[in-house]
Amino acid sequence: MSKNITSRANDYSKWYNELVVKADLAENSAVRGCMVIKPYGYAIWEKMQAELDRMFKETGHQNAYFPLFVPKSLFEAEEKNAEGFAKECAVVTHYRLQNDPEAPGKLRVDPEAKLEEELVVRPTSEAIIWNTYKGWIQSYRDLPLLINQWANVVRWEMRTRLFLRTAEFLWQEGHTAHATKQEAMEEAKLMNNVYAKFAEQFMAIPVVKGVKTESERFAGADETFCIEALMQDGKALQAGTSHFLGQNFAKAFDVKYTNKEGKQDYVWATSWGVSTRLMGALIMTHSDDKGLVLPPNLAPNQVVIVPIYKDEDQHNAITELATALMNDLRQKNISVTYDNRDTYRPGAKFAQHELQGVPVRIAIGPKDLENNTVELVRRDTLTKDTVDLNVLVDVVVNLMQDIQKSLYKKALIFRDTHTTRVNSWEEFKTVLETKTGFISAHWDGTLETEHKIKELTKATIRCIPIHGTTEPGKCVYSGARSSQRVLFAKAY
Amino acid sequence: MSKNITSRANDYSKWYNELVVKADLAENSAVRGCMVIKPYGYAIWEKMQAELDRMFKETGHQNAYFPLFVPKSLFEAEEKNAEGFAKECAVVTHYRLQNDPEAPGKLRVDPEAKLEEELVVRPTSEAIIWNTYKGWIQSYRDLPLLINQWANVVRWEMRTRLFLRTAEFLWQEGHTAHATKQEAMEEAKLMNNVYAKFAEQFMAIPVVKGVKTESERFAGADETFCIEALMQDGKALQAGTSHFLGQNFAKAFDVKYTNKEGKQDYVWATSWGVSTRLMGALIMTHSDDKGLVLPPNLAPNQVVIVPIYKDEDQHNAITELATALMNDLRQKNISVTYDNRDTYRPGAKFAQHELQGVPVRIAIGPKDLENNTVELVRRDTLTKDTVDLNVLVDVVVNLMQDIQKSLYKKALIFRDTHTTRVNSWEEFKTVLETKTGFISAHWDGTLETEHKIKELTKATIRCIPIHGTTEPGKCVYSGARSSQRVLFAKAY
Repeated sequence: MSKNITSRANDYSKWYNELVVKADLAENSAVRGCMVIKPYGYAIWEKMQAELDRMFKETGHQNAYFPLFVPKSLFEAEEKNAEGFAKECAVVTHYRLQNDPEAPGKLRVDPEAKLEEELVVRPTSEAIIWNTYKGWIQSYRDLPLLINQWANVVRWEMRTRLFLRTAEFLWQEGHTAHATKQEAMEEAKLMNNVYAKFAEQFMAIPVVKGVKTESERFAGADETFCIEALMQDGKALQAGTSHFLGQNFAKAFDVKYTNKEGKQDYVWATSWGVSTRLMGALIMTHSDDKGLVLPPNLAPNQVVIVPIYKDEDQHNAITELATALMNDLRQKNISVTYDNRDTYRPGAKFAQHELQGVPVRIAIGPKDLENNTVELVRRDTLTKDTVDLNVLVDVVVNLMQDIQKSLYKKALIFRDTHTTRVNSWEEFKTVLETKTGFISAHWDGTLETEHKIKELTKATIRCIPIHGTTEPGKCVYSGARSSQRVLFAKAY
Repeated sequence: MSKNITSRANDYSKWYNELVVKADLAENSAVRGCMVIKPYGYAIWEKMQAELDRMFKETGHQNAYFPLFVPKSLFEAEEKNAEGFAKECAVVTHYRLQNDPEAPGKLRVDPEAKLEEELVVRPTSEAIIWNTYKGWIQSYRDLPLLINQWANVVRWEMRTRLFLRTAEFLWQEGHTAHATKQEAMEEAKLMNNVYAKFAEQFMAIPVVKGVKTESERFAGADETFCIEALMQDGKALQAGTSHFLGQNFAKAFDVKYTNKEGKQDYVWATSWGVSTRLMGALIMTHSDDKGLVLPPNLAPNQVVIVPIYKDEDQHNAITELATALMNDLRQKNISVTYDNRDTYRPGAKFAQHELQGVPVRIAIGPKDLENNTVELVRRDTLTKDTVDLNVLVDVVVNLMQDIQKSLYKKALIFRDTHTTRVNSWEEFKTVLETKTGFISAHWDGTLETEHKIKELTKATIRCIPIHGTTEPGKCVYSGARSSQRVLFAKAY
């Protein structure tokens, strides 16, 4: 079982693809662009879901479920949104198969079973949800309406990559309705903050909070807030977005409410989402040439214990010790497994757990039994220690925090050292091609310059940072006046 | 806000439909046959999911995720399965919309974007999963493979009803692979037991475990185990199924493994699922003319506290008391909310919580403050008590168990008194039409008799009970010899 993967230096893209498959996270399926999320990958996603779901509920949101399909006439109601997604829609046109008279044992679409109106497989659910909200919202007493949905969506992408860009993906989409513009704007910012907190505290990924330029906005939004992360190859990844939708959907679906004074007005909206794309960000931020590196807060197994023995007596003694140790660790809320498979040798187990990013590996052999010790290896640094059993539980508990913090810090240093303030066009191009990373530069605020820069360099404006300082300057490309630096990068 | 619903005696079917909508559980959507699961309904489903997911994991299963779409060529590979579902498949034929040149602002399917091969929206996932398992299973070391998926599926039903039969529904589907026939059969039985335990301990619904007759089997299965419940109108509801699939899918998708002796063989399979249909069973088993009745083990809010006050001082004192009480109850793991809305009167709140089935309602008024008491109403019996604050927490804790058990017992008595042993065809018809419920009768084992009985009475064989006693007798319809009674009923 050779599980060696291509090194990052050799081919970062190949490294990622191999890692995802060999660490048993996901694989391509028989359906073009759609992935299978394997049990180990899904277990990580479940940890993410659990934390996000808790955070959504703590901020007052409830879950619900809306249909997978959007009738075409609803889909096209909000024109910008429809235009933005029309080119990547899977469309259901028929509702029945029949035996193919020309090929026994085969099926064909029954031409008699054509739908009167085609159904779009949801690429996002604003249309179907706002059509529903029309029935739910009459008065100020029905507001705010704070709803989230965990669902699958489909966007027919031409070039797909596991987790990063797939035709079908899993996500959550929040859809809220508010009485005032200000409340809706605050909600969009709140969720931007929730996403940033999740990325930093659980994924150990530092992110820049910002707003998108008009051309990078969600189709149908008046403002898009985002969190942007930097991957090890110096490319940016948009990790979550939160949209202030103004009254666009309320107007498209005629959703009005009566305020306390009896006056009618359209409601204000937001939507916000993160997807299985976060898995890609997690993998690319921390992992190394040996495989996956997982922050303890999202690792399905935080600790694995591997026995090393030559005879049955040793095996029994180690199993007894491991069992006691697991009990102790579980009482400290640490998830731990005992890899007692007799079908693999210790070396193969070590390689597998390294590949799969288990934060701490404990090996127990005959010498350890004698000395009352274990061998402990932390995955992030691969450092090996001999630890006395008396202090082991405390050491592991502390390591969970250490590793979590250390991964964040490492990623933060990388991000900060790969964020370059640039003042000239030559410098811009050089930094982008050689050093890579975020480029903080002045921009004249025009769509024209933005497009020109993208055309010339493939770099896009990732965001206008919320915590950026406003300072007068000159656009790095056009030389026109600018009041604030924005962040450019090549991006996933 | 009139929330009165039709009585069960008046029109059971109307009662159900009104209850589902007025209790804020679900509603019909703009998509034919697809429902919106509203936040309160979804919160109950989440409780079900959490318990089931725990039970699946405790029995060694892992979650994963497979594509929504099944290419037609894979879908048709297992012929019986394909034949069983072909007539209700939503089919994706195109992957793009474009501006409609004949109708500005409208979209149409882009005729250039026709898929080479049509994609079936999964009605069930055996085909796509077994095509994947082919790559995952080589040796006995890869077995058993015990995987579950939480997902949406689509079956284009012509007559739909909220939760009970919808074009799209949510479910879990387990798909397992085993080295031996016996192991697979044991797995199918194990999951049948897990479902029965869940129904009885959490949903408070007594179920009959049994096997389906050949004609009622899952398409592609060699044996289908089921749990059957009885609703208050005397109709049966199939609440969960577990299928022994033999080697049918392994052969259709060529999934072989090498055993310890180096010999190759096809693997053995099971699949099993429960869906949002369980919501229908839960509603119809316990609810009454006032609305929903929920077993405490699945109630999103187990207790609600309603303040009754005339002035601000009273309100403050009650809020203080309610806050302390909530803390105490939460420490006992009881979920409790304080309905402090100033936009509704106590009477309206009472009606809403009754309609939504909150197991225990506590009202606190000025008199209660004086007497150190509260007014407590349990939803299942609607009995009202004045309870001393000193014992309140204990009373509520005990009530949770009492109500849970009492609902189960009531449903069990109903089920048992509505299960009738019948020995003649006249009796069969009379009982079915007047008393309703399960009919335990002898059947000659032929498809012909089964179909004839269905044709004449609409009753189907719900199952051959696993714990039925074998006794010789004569078929209630044909008079031919029979060795065991089976359960007939009209069914949802």
